[in-house]
Amino acid sequence: MADELITLSDVAAAAGVSLSTASKALNGTDRISAATREHVRVTADRLGFRHNALARSFARGRSQTIGVLTYRASNPFTRVVLATAATELGAREQAILLYDARLGEHDITESVLQLRARRIDGVIVIGTGTSFPAPSITDRFDVPVTYAFTFTEDPDDVTITSDDDQIGRLAMTHLLSTGRRRIAHLTAEPNDAAAVKRAAGAGAVLADAGLDWVTPVRFGRWRENWGEEAVREVLADAPDVDAIFCGSDAIARGAERGLRMAGRDVPGDVALIGVDNWEQLMHDQRVSRHLTTIDVGLEEIGRRVAAQLLDPDPKPGIQYVAPHVVIADTA
Amino acid sequence: MADELITLSDVAAAAGVSLSTASKALNGTDRISAATREHVRVTADRLGFRHNALARSFARGRSQTIGVLTYRASNPFTRVVLATAATELGAREQAILLYDARLGEHDITESVLQLRARRIDGVIVIGTGTSFPAPSITDRFDVPVTYAFTFTEDPDDVTITSDDDQIGRLAMTHLLSTGRRRIAHLTAEPNDAAAVKRAAGAGAVLADAGLDWVTPVRFGRWRENWGEEAVREVLADAPDVDAIFCGSDAIARGAERGLRMAGRDVPGDVALIGVDNWEQLMHDQRVSRHLTTIDVGLEEIGRRVAAQLLDPDPKPGIQYVAPHVVIADTA
Repeated sequence: MADELITLSDVAAAAGVSLSTASKALNGTDRISAATREHVRVTADRLGFRHNALARSFARGRSQTIGVLTYRASNPFTRVVLATAATELGAREQAILLYDARLGEHDITESVLQLRARRIDGVIVIGTGTSFPAPSITDRFDVPVTYAFTFTEDPDDVTITSDDDQIGRLAMTHLLSTGRRRIAHLTAEPNDAAAVKRAAGAGAVLADAGLDWVTPVRFGRWRENWGEEAVREVLADAPDVDAIFCGSDAIARGAERGLRMAGRDVPGDVALIGVDNWEQLMHDQRVSRHLTTIDVGLEEIGRRVAAQLLDPDPKPGIQYVAPHVVIADTA
Repeated sequence: MADELITLSDVAAAAGVSLSTASKALNGTDRISAATREHVRVTADRLGFRHNALARSFARGRSQTIGVLTYRASNPFTRVVLATAATELGAREQAILLYDARLGEHDITESVLQLRARRIDGVIVIGTGTSFPAPSITDRFDVPVTYAFTFTEDPDDVTITSDDDQIGRLAMTHLLSTGRRRIAHLTAEPNDAAAVKRAAGAGAVLADAGLDWVTPVRFGRWRENWGEEAVREVLADAPDVDAIFCGSDAIARGAERGLRMAGRDVPGDVALIGVDNWEQLMHDQRVSRHLTTIDVGLEEIGRRVAAQLLDPDPKPGIQYVAPHVVIADTA
């Protein structure tokens, strides 16, 4: 059986004071001698007494609970941000109440009412990426709202997200630093903001080096099979290609397979760099790695969005998390 | 600005009744005419009134909050179970308070006190897999405790986890059904319960078919590079191998690369099946897939552990979630 929960009465009895004195000593709500206060506090600590957090929350009108709204909690990026934010919030004794897929026009009204009735202390909206903007819902709440791994159309929304331009720049800088010069790029849809910004960032660094893509940027899908398919086009159009920047690790996996099937060695003939750092985030491979990649900073986004929400003076606008290169076998 | 929160006074005023009558109508705590009750309820709905959930929790001594204890919240398996359980709980208006990495002998005592002070309604312990047993902490709490994706030494603990024996059986059954007969197995450490059970399950099906492994089972690590290394040994020892069951998708990725580097076609020469279904869970590739694999049921574990926790009559002991085959290109 579990031990009985220590109550304020237990503390009062053990300290030999009245319940009222014990309460005053621990809550600091009335005058009481320093010696008595100290005596009661030491007794409370010895017994393992904890204030009834629920009663305290109620008295303050705060729930120590954060509403978390996701578009799709099963999205793998969302999961990383969610787990990291929940960890950070838990370390500060903040619970999360997760509402998944209730951000649509109809559901959001109901969600807002329910979260307010619950007296949540703040809201975190977690997106699935920086491909397309999300609606701002900040003005539906009278508690702070922060956004993670998405962007809204309100420039004042407190938003922590990845830096796609910088991701492209880093990838290209790395390929150039290893001596590659005949570089191709495979990425997702041409109307996807993340794909477009990564391509532009990489292209700018390439141009600064006095170079151009060895074959036009190929826009397609965030899919492994697209990488395999596109690499065949690249090899046909630019057989002397010596590096490929892939917009995601999934595309890079397909590209690597396509290269090997065409008899090209990786990285001997063609270097490959992806984006996402799936091997660490997803396969938990921190020790042995294969694919060289860019980590977009999802865990950092999760930590910072939680910290910004609890910050009494959060910074309005978009804060970009710095990506970093993860060097492994392929580039 | 956000709308003002609708209070019980607003409802009473709009319905033309006293505060006390409005409260009785909505709480059902005293006698009141059915007509008045209905009138007040309709008015409350029209105004969008919600009970103050925090006050209601306090009155009932329940927090509608579940403590979630993780060994390592950054573990990718843990993240999937966590996100799925949080989604399920959120749909039932239950928040989670996540304590990460506080399950050690020292920290657990503090965690227990804090969670009890918070008046949590239950506890979910999420493990990182079925490789090694976790200590039972059920008797430290006076609320229900359930375990996900782990196992304890207490046979009565309510535990939802993956079925490693069945995973091995399914993988082997699939390879045999595609006509393969000269089969090898690459997996993790020989003292890892998940690796051992998967190997045993697969071996039993192989034996039932009157066959034996074409080369002894190779125990190593849950790592991609181990797959690449081990496949070279397999090809040296059993050049006529026609299928490899890999204990995880990471091992299978390495094995595939090793096979291609050795000039073998996949699945033409050698079929490959992994375990984990990373492409769906982690790369979000539900449409186009590459690696044939076994889905161990992590999302189902997350859903069921939440449901069991809230079930007034949970089932003691281990409940295994059924794995399923995900057929793609490699087998």
